[in-house]
Amino acid sequence: MKQNIILAVNAGSSSVKISVYSAEIGKAPVQIAEAQVSGLTAPPAKLKYTRGDEAVINGREVDEKVDGQSDAFGLLLETLIKDEDLPQVKSKEDVGIICHRIVHGGDYSKPQLISNETYEHLEALNDLAPLHNANSLGIVQLCIRSLPSAHNVACFDSQFHSTIPEHIRTYPINRDIARSNHLRKYGFHGISYSFITRSTSEFLKKSKDQVNIIALHLGSGASACAIKGGKSWDTSMGLTPLAGLPGATRSGSVDPSLVFHYASDVGKLSPASTKDLHISRAEEILNKESGWKSLTGTTDFGKIVSGANSNDPTMKLAFDLLVDRICGFVGSYFVSLRGQVDALVFAGGIGEKSSELRAAVVDQLGCLGFVIDEGRNKKKLEGVVEDVGKEGVNPRVLVCQTDEQFEMARDCAENKEFW
Amino acid sequence: MKQNIILAVNAGSSSVKISVYSAEIGKAPVQIAEAQVSGLTAPPAKLKYTRGDEAVINGREVDEKVDGQSDAFGLLLETLIKDEDLPQVKSKEDVGIICHRIVHGGDYSKPQLISNETYEHLEALNDLAPLHNANSLGIVQLCIRSLPSAHNVACFDSQFHSTIPEHIRTYPINRDIARSNHLRKYGFHGISYSFITRSTSEFLKKSKDQVNIIALHLGSGASACAIKGGKSWDTSMGLTPLAGLPGATRSGSVDPSLVFHYASDVGKLSPASTKDLHISRAEEILNKESGWKSLTGTTDFGKIVSGANSNDPTMKLAFDLLVDRICGFVGSYFVSLRGQVDALVFAGGIGEKSSELRAAVVDQLGCLGFVIDEGRNKKKLEGVVEDVGKEGVNPRVLVCQTDEQFEMARDCAENKEFW
Repeated sequence: MKQNIILAVNAGSSSVKISVYSAEIGKAPVQIAEAQVSGLTAPPAKLKYTRGDEAVINGREVDEKVDGQSDAFGLLLETLIKDEDLPQVKSKEDVGIICHRIVHGGDYSKPQLISNETYEHLEALNDLAPLHNANSLGIVQLCIRSLPSAHNVACFDSQFHSTIPEHIRTYPINRDIARSNHLRKYGFHGISYSFITRSTSEFLKKSKDQVNIIALHLGSGASACAIKGGKSWDTSMGLTPLAGLPGATRSGSVDPSLVFHYASDVGKLSPASTKDLHISRAEEILNKESGWKSLTGTTDFGKIVSGANSNDPTMKLAFDLLVDRICGFVGSYFVSLRGQVDALVFAGGIGEKSSELRAAVVDQLGCLGFVIDEGRNKKKLEGVVEDVGKEGVNPRVLVCQTDEQFEMARDCAENKEFW
Repeated sequence: MKQNIILAVNAGSSSVKISVYSAEIGKAPVQIAEAQVSGLTAPPAKLKYTRGDEAVINGREVDEKVDGQSDAFGLLLETLIKDEDLPQVKSKEDVGIICHRIVHGGDYSKPQLISNETYEHLEALNDLAPLHNANSLGIVQLCIRSLPSAHNVACFDSQFHSTIPEHIRTYPINRDIARSNHLRKYGFHGISYSFITRSTSEFLKKSKDQVNIIALHLGSGASACAIKGGKSWDTSMGLTPLAGLPGATRSGSVDPSLVFHYASDVGKLSPASTKDLHISRAEEILNKESGWKSLTGTTDFGKIVSGANSNDPTMKLAFDLLVDRICGFVGSYFVSLRGQVDALVFAGGIGEKSSELRAAVVDQLGCLGFVIDEGRNKKKLEGVVEDVGKEGVNPRVLVCQTDEQFEMARDCAENKEFW
């Protein structure tokens, strides 16, 4: 059977992560290494590299200047190739498939093989989410150019949500403009929701197309998703990742006229715009200067939980606000799934780490039948999916250690056309 | 006991309505006449006048030019005074109190007596909701000037919501700017929700401070409200009436970045702006050029229901979209009231008239325990509150014929300081 090395690349606004998998067609890929550069927007950048279970480099400051995501990718690739104990990646030619997480995929409902010829399709999506897609595009271009023997695959955060029904994804706005400007709910975090759906259905021993869940991907970007018969039915993010739940620096849904009362000239281009990327001052304010950091001064949700526990009113406000907004979406999705819910699933950095947030959310959801088990909720997570709900109660309350890179690599391993 | 004539004035963007009440301090006012000018934005304007149960003038086209809300108010007042069969209003001096519905009341938590000296307080609110408050302000000014013996009272659509807790009313945005620019959730339709709360608690024979309801005021402007112990706990409108449910021409909540992808220059002033009123093109698009009219071509929800019934896909989309959004808020509020809900209450033009909408909404809410009674739901409404829920099932499903003018007059009759 043909073997392949798959690199799964996940570029954020301040970091780039590569997970390295050994794969066979149709089989679950096996991770053999992982490398990450972080701190791109707050130099010096830091490098972390793990091979198997061994932490080879643990947050070392990078001497050379790392200017943006492409530089970071180059450094990571070099780190992999130079490591003599990683014989599977001795040169660029050993890499078979590189899958890239792209936030906004427009109408794409599945991953796309990207070549020099089709790269322009990705660029066309950039207008819809310039703040988000730009992080990845430079790396895609670099890979096409400098690893000519590898196949590049774009995996979209929006593709999982292509099943959202028309009456849910439509905005009540001028239909011609909506069509010509591609304005509808797309939804994001879909690579994660795909991982969560599969893992949860395996955990519950239900076939994937029978499983109904309300999933919460809670990190510095946060969203909720109603999954019906294994498919996305609704999600809290919208045309862009701005809508829905608040994030670390993102407002989430606010009165759409708010920003015009926030500052004058919010329609003007932000100084962060470039010739090709047009970002309004409004989008910058709501995506980068809001969220719980704007309320508390910190992006670190752990500090907010500690503060709330010791009754710091500002921290408590931010904590209670997030719990309120999360519970609102769960109530809404419980109804849109008509009460047929197998489990509420917490995932993402905060969803996996903050037992306090889980406890507060599930407490408020008692009227829908969710009950947490205090002991289980506080235990260290071990499996991919852990049950933290009270024994014998349905629907279940689960925590899922989601893994976007694995999900992308799995998608590639399953699709012969990418080999 | 002192008698008084109260005029309750309700000015919309295209109409002005006056209800005339005979009142005694501390007693429920009694309506003796009602007059309305409609079609202000689609001339010729039309006049309707009812005295007691008699339709004296029934939609007569107005010969003279009616230029705006103040002109319309003048015409209505003249109609009342000229009617020899309305001896209670023989001259301007017979009017004791004029209460005005003002959409945005900022931090006011109760009605305010307005004089020439305090009028500026109302003008200061205009910045927060120029599209909405301006309709009423000209009439207030006219009354202060030309009916000097009457007391003018401002009743605010936002005042009922002053009880919304901080973690619900706060937006996760820069706190200093939120404070200085007064950016928070205010909520509207509050005069109606106040009427609904009182009427529902009387109907359910519960004391007002014990009643928990989810109320839906559904008209060309639509909103939802969670009422806990008789007080507003959450509502779907926000800083302005734009947020939340879609309306006839209003988008409701959409991705806050959507409008920047809708057209260029949305931050610029709309041509409808004046020296004093600054309305961005974005606010005009989302308030006046969206909603179900933008999907279907009609503001008439009855036509949408008929179309949906005969499987017209556009009408069905608009109908299903509204049902989805309404059910989302009900699910969300059910959770924030922790399942302690006495009744779901439909009100407003569409909520009171469309048995089809009520049936579709309640059908989807079956998982929360709401069940409609088909026969009761289709019956003509008679009482102020009618029960359309299935016998013996809790929570109840009610319809309330809400009456904002009465609620304002009642508020005035109860407050000695306004006499």
